Amino acid sequence: MNKPQLLKGFRDFLPETKRRRDFLLEKIKETFELFGFDPLETPTLEYSSLLLGKYGKEADKLIYLFKDRGERKVALRYDQTVPTARVLSQYQNTLPKFFRRYQIQNVFRAEKPQKGRYRELIQCDVDIFGSLSTLADAEILAVTYFSLKNAGFEKIKLLLNDRQTLITSLQTYANEKITVFSIIQSIDKLLKIGSENVVAELIKKGLEKEKSEKLIDKIQKLKPSNNLLEIIKWAKKLGIDEKSLIFTPTLARGLDYYTGMIFEIIIPAYSPTLSCGGGGRYDKLINKLGGPNIPAVGVALGFDRLVEAAEFLNILPAKTKGTQVLITVFDKTELEKSLEITNILRQKGIKTELFPAEIKIDKQLKYADQKGVPYVVIIGPQEVEKNLVKLKNMKNGQQEELTITELIKKLQILNV
Amino acid sequence: MNKPQLLKGFRDFLPETKRRRDFLLEKIKETFELFGFDPLETPTLEYSSLLLGKYGKEADKLIYLFKDRGERKVALRYDQTVPTARVLSQYQNTLPKFFRRYQIQNVFRAEKPQKGRYRELIQCDVDIFGSLSTLADAEILAVTYFSLKNAGFEKIKLLLNDRQTLITSLQTYANEKITVFSIIQSIDKLLKIGSENVVAELIKKGLEKEKSEKLIDKIQKLKPSNNLLEIIKWAKKLGIDEKSLIFTPTLARGLDYYTGMIFEIIIPAYSPTLSCGGGGRYDKLINKLGGPNIPAVGVALGFDRLVEAAEFLNILPAKTKGTQVLITVFDKTELEKSLEITNILRQKGIKTELFPAEIKIDKQLKYADQKGVPYVVIIGPQEVEKNLVKLKNMKNGQQEELTITELIKKLQILNV
Repeated sequence: MNKPQLLKGFRDFLPETKRRRDFLLEKIKETFELFGFDPLETPTLEYSSLLLGKYGKEADKLIYLFKDRGERKVALRYDQTVPTARVLSQYQNTLPKFFRRYQIQNVFRAEKPQKGRYRELIQCDVDIFGSLSTLADAEILAVTYFSLKNAGFEKIKLLLNDRQTLITSLQTYANEKITVFSIIQSIDKLLKIGSENVVAELIKKGLEKEKSEKLIDKIQKLKPSNNLLEIIKWAKKLGIDEKSLIFTPTLARGLDYYTGMIFEIIIPAYSPTLSCGGGGRYDKLINKLGGPNIPAVGVALGFDRLVEAAEFLNILPAKTKGTQVLITVFDKTELEKSLEITNILRQKGIKTELFPAEIKIDKQLKYADQKGVPYVVIIGPQEVEKNLVKLKNMKNGQQEELTITELIKKLQILNV
Repeated sequence: MNKPQLLKGFRDFLPETKRRRDFLLEKIKETFELFGFDPLETPTLEYSSLLLGKYGKEADKLIYLFKDRGERKVALRYDQTVPTARVLSQYQNTLPKFFRRYQIQNVFRAEKPQKGRYRELIQCDVDIFGSLSTLADAEILAVTYFSLKNAGFEKIKLLLNDRQTLITSLQTYANEKITVFSIIQSIDKLLKIGSENVVAELIKKGLEKEKSEKLIDKIQKLKPSNNLLEIIKWAKKLGIDEKSLIFTPTLARGLDYYTGMIFEIIIPAYSPTLSCGGGGRYDKLINKLGGPNIPAVGVALGFDRLVEAAEFLNILPAKTKGTQVLITVFDKTELEKSLEITNILRQKGIKTELFPAEIKIDKQLKYADQKGVPYVVIIGPQEVEKNLVKLKNMKNGQQEELTITELIKKLQILNV
C-alpha cells in the first residue's frame, strides 16, 4: 500500500497549530458577538446552479463541481455571500428587518496550490443587510477594527474610499474600448505597481497616454465624499482611533459589485501593502444573486493572513493551553489515589491528563517533558502514607510536597 | 430564475438554532479539553483511495466521490477515524507516544434523507492512541460521562460489555454458514427487536433453533470479564456514578473492528433505547486503515441526537444569548451620544447593537421586540440635556432613567 497522503493545497492542523488558530478565531468571534451580530451556518454543498455565474467567468473555473449519487449537479461552498443570498430569499419572512449576521466557515477554491494559497480556507464574514444608513457602514468599520484590536493587533489601518466617487470621476474617461470598471481595475493596482505601470496598462487597454496620466493625477487629488465623511464621523464616535481611518482616493478594490464605501485592512507592523481583508457597501448584489432587493454592507477578514500576521507579531499565546498537569501512575496500590486526584482536579476546572499506562516513572516524566506539560503530579507509596502529593515543575525541575487543597490552590493560581 | 433551494438532506442553521447548537458543542469541547485531549483538524477532501474499502461495501456507496479539476479522484470526509489513521502515519515521529486527540468536524454521507438522517453532520470523536492499559478505557468512559454531565444531562447510562468475551463465548456456535461476527450482528439487535426475532434471524442465517435459543440464554447469563471489571473500577475512581455503569452482556455493537471494551450511551429521560453515541477499544483498526500498528480506544458522540435530547429535556438556555441591548437612534443631534454609549457598553463587554437606520423610535422598539432583544436604550433631546439615558425593559415595558455608570452596572448584573 502506498503511504497515505494529504491532497495538495489542503492542510492538517495538528494540536499546537490548531489551538493557536482557534485562539485567534475565538477572539474574532467574541467581538462579532459583542457587536450584536448573529451566527449563521449554511451547508458545504449547494446546487451548482446557485454558485455558477455568480462570481465571474474566471472564478467559475475555481469552483469544485460534481454530480452526486442522485445525479444532482452540486458544488462545494465557494464563498459565504451567495449562500447568504439564498438564506435571505428562503427565510425572508422570518429574518429580522435588519439582518446582522456573521459566518465563519470553510470555503473551497480549486486554485493552483502555492505559498499562501489554499484549496480549503476559513472565511470570517460580517454583514448588515437591509440598511442604507451610513450608521451601518460605520458599524462594519467598527466591528472590523475592534475584532483585530481585541485580538491583540495594534496600529491597524483601514484604507477608505467611496466607489461612487471613483465611478463619477472616471465616467468621462471611459470609451468604447475601456469601461469605467476596467479603469477601476487598473487603478486598483496603483499602490502595488506604481503609476507608471498603471499608465502603461491603461494605454494598452485603449486610453491615450495624456488622458491616462491626467486621470491618475485627478484621482490622487480627489477629496472624500460627504457620504464617506459622515461614515468616518460615526466610526470615530464608535471608538475607532482617528489615525486608523485613512482616506485613500486611489483605493479601488477589484470586485465590480461595490456601490459606496470600500475599505481594506492593513497591519503596517506586519506588512505595509498586504491586505488582511476588506469590504464595503454592495446594495445591488444580493438581488443580483437571486436574493431579495436589499442593501448590504460588510467585511471579509482574511483569516490565514491574520494568522500569519499574528505569528509574525508574536501576539498569540506562546504556550499551548493544553494539559496543565499530568498525573503519573505508580503501581496498582497507589493507582487509585492517582485516579481520585485526577477527578478532583478536573472538578476544579484544571486541565488534567492521567498517564494511560503503568510504566516506569521516568518514562512518564519524559512524556510530559516532550509534550510540554508544565506540571506533573507524582503519588508513590511515601506520598500515599503521608497523604500528600509531589508536584514537579517541569521547567525548572523543582519538586514540592503538597496537600490536595494546596495542590488545587497552586494549580488554579498558575492557571490565571 | 427558479427560487434558490437548499439541497435535500442538508441544513441551514439560522441564528437561534445555531447558538443553541454551539452552546452544546462548546460545553462538550470544554470537557474534552478538561480531560487533556488535544484538538485535531483534517481537510474536508481526501484522496478517495484513502477512504474506499475502509468502511465496508455498504458504506462505500455512501461516500461522496468525484474527480477534481486535476482529475484526481477525491472524496468528502466520511468519518474522522480514517483521516486520523493517515495523520498517525504521516506525523508518526512528531506526535506524542500517547496521542489523546479530539476532533469535531462535519462528515458527509450520501444517505437517503429521512427524519434524523442528514447528509452533512457533526461528529465529536475522542480517542487515546498508543495505550493498551485499562486506564485508557476508563479515561474514555470518564470523558464521555462528564462531557454529557457538564452539558447538563442527568442519569446518563453507559451500557458496557467486552467484545472479547462475546467472541470467545460464541466461537463454538459459528459454523460454515454463520460466522462469529454474523452472530454478533444478530445479538446486537436483542435490545431492539427482542429474543424471539433474533432467534428467527439466527435460524434464517443457518443456526439450529435449539442452539440459537441456548446461545441467547448463555449470553444473557455471562459475567463481566476481569478486563471489564478493572475498567469499571477505574471509571468509578475517575468520578463516574456507579449507577451509570451498566454491564450489559447482550450489548454487541454492529461494527466488526472492536477488540475489547464496547459501550453505548443512553439518556433514559430522553429515550431508553436510542443510542446517543458509543465506542470501545479497537486495537487492530489503525494499522488496517494504513496507520501504524498501535492500539486505540475511543468514543464518538452523536451530536444531532444529543441536540435532540437536549431540546427534549429543555437543558439548553431558553433565551438566545445574542444582543443584550439595542441602542436606538434619534436624529442627527442626539445620534452622536447614541454612538458614544454604544462604544462604552461594548468596551465593558456588553453585547450591544446600534440601530442601523434613522427611523421612528416606535419602529425601532418594534424591531427589538421582534428580535427578542431584552433591553433598549433611548437617548432623546431630554436625555441628552439631563445627561441621562432611558433604559426600557422590553419584557415588562418598564422604563427608568439612569446615568451611564448606572446603566453599565445594571446591564452587567443582568448579564450574569
